[in-house]
Amino acid sequence: MTSSDAIEKVSLVEKLSLFSDHWSPKIVGELNDSHVKLVKLKGEFVWHHHETEDELFLVIKGSLLIRLRDRDIKLEEGELVIIPRGVEHLPIASEEAHVLLLEPKTTLNTGNVSSERTVAELQRI
Amino acid sequence: MTSSDAIEKVSLVEKLSLFSDHWSPKIVGELNDSHVKLVKLKGEFVWHHHETEDELFLVIKGSLLIRLRDRDIKLEEGELVIIPRGVEHLPIASEEAHVLLLEPKTTLNTGNVSSERTVAELQRI
Repeated sequence: MTSSDAIEKVSLVEKLSLFSDHWSPKIVGELNDSHVKLVKLKGEFVWHHHETEDELFLVIKGSLLIRLRDRDIKLEEGELVIIPRGVEHLPIASEEAHVLLLEPKTTLNTGNVSSERTVAELQRI
Repeated sequence: MTSSDAIEKVSLVEKLSLFSDHWSPKIVGELNDSHVKLVKLKGEFVWHHHETEDELFLVIKGSLLIRLRDRDIKLEEGELVIIPRGVEHLPIASEEAHVLLLEPKTTLNTGNVSSERTVAELQRI
């Protein structure tokens, strides 16, 4: 039986109040091979894809446009989308958006692309 | 490059409007080795654990008590908890609660226990 000592609930709003930088996902939990992350987005990210990782975006606050090569997906609060591995995408938030991400621990935020937006070492909050 | 044809956004509220039964998780997405599920809970579940799977509960509406053997965790809307593999837990919702679950595709809702609450074949909505 695993110890339950390490189990702590996570308030999304409380965690989101702890940071204000954009495009820098913070780890708020881990399960199986994945991390649960929170991120604040504003502006346009970079086109990228993840070779071997599917990625979930759930909008907590605001709205998020995810541009694909052949169409756009507009997410509002309480909406999620899963971007399968290999699919190029470009997240855009015209106003600040708060987003929960779920993805394998191996996932780099900019996927196959290295840019000034790349965050190699994520903070845990 | 994977096709983007299958990518569809999921509105949690809309999906939750499609069913009313309790303790019967519906699959609303899959990524990597996991399923994203929505479930409506009311009343008391059964004590159980999952041998090899960590499980995430995120409360979308209402509140959820997760009883552990040594303490209770009370989750409100916008709060999540990850129950690691091996940890016995008993979900209780005194009023109806709407919950997002994230867990490996192999996960059985009642874990190590077989009961009238066991749902072997989950519906996709």
